[in-house]
Amino acid sequence: MTTIGLHLICELSGCDVAQIGSVDAVREAMLRAAAVANVTVLNSYFHKFSPSGVSGLLCIAESHISVHTWPETGYAAVDVYTCGDRAMPHKAIQTLARAFGAKDKEMTEFSRGLPQSGSRFTHEVREAAVR
Amino acid sequence: MTTIGLHLICELSGCDVAQIGSVDAVREAMLRAAAVANVTVLNSYFHKFSPSGVSGLLCIAESHISVHTWPETGYAAVDVYTCGDRAMPHKAIQTLARAFGAKDKEMTEFSRGLPQSGSRFTHEVREAAVR
Repeated sequence: MTTIGLHLICELSGCDVAQIGSVDAVREAMLRAAAVANVTVLNSYFHKFSPSGVSGLLCIAESHISVHTWPETGYAAVDVYTCGDRAMPHKAIQTLARAFGAKDKEMTEFSRGLPQSGSRFTHEVREAAVR
Repeated sequence: MTTIGLHLICELSGCDVAQIGSVDAVREAMLRAAAVANVTVLNSYFHKFSPSGVSGLLCIAESHISVHTWPETGYAAVDVYTCGDRAMPHKAIQTLARAFGAKDKEMTEFSRGLPQSGSRFTHEVREAAVR
């Protein structure tokens, strides 16, 4: 199989409501995560829902980073999809988890690319988020 | 578990090189997919890479739709993440597969949301794409 990229799908729970409810905080965290992950941001978009919730999307040269938050339950859905061997997607996840004050994370890793014989589902990680 | 959304991760292969290499074609396909899936587009962004490849991101009220293409190998990476019970994410995948002339698709479904006891990985589907 030709692996073209790694896609990390992450559920962050027990997040700081003020952080994940603020579009400015989400923007700052995502742009920092992109920098730490060594990826190039082509475009960014952020949206504040009413009454609560934020969505943020970064189109990066290496694919994308997304965040969708539900402050009322302390939950943030994150995915980081990167191609190439210079990107460090796990560092983006770690940066977002810290910025959002997440207590726990569940992360699933996926290989992306052309058809392959095995499962794309590699493994799940459940752990207390690193503070 | 409180499921907050469904995330479909899809590999389309054997795609029409002209379709997935054209930013206009990718834009048109993605906006049509969003309409068919009954979701609300908040923002769209498309990028043409040099020498080839297109990325497209739609931020939708229900989460996001992304496409990243590698025309040189006929491959398109798609993900459709929707929340709520009015969205029809499978229809978005079907619309994109047809628009890109994909010969094959591999799709993995994920439940997104707060911590749960079981795996988020639901199942993989491998099939010839519906023409």
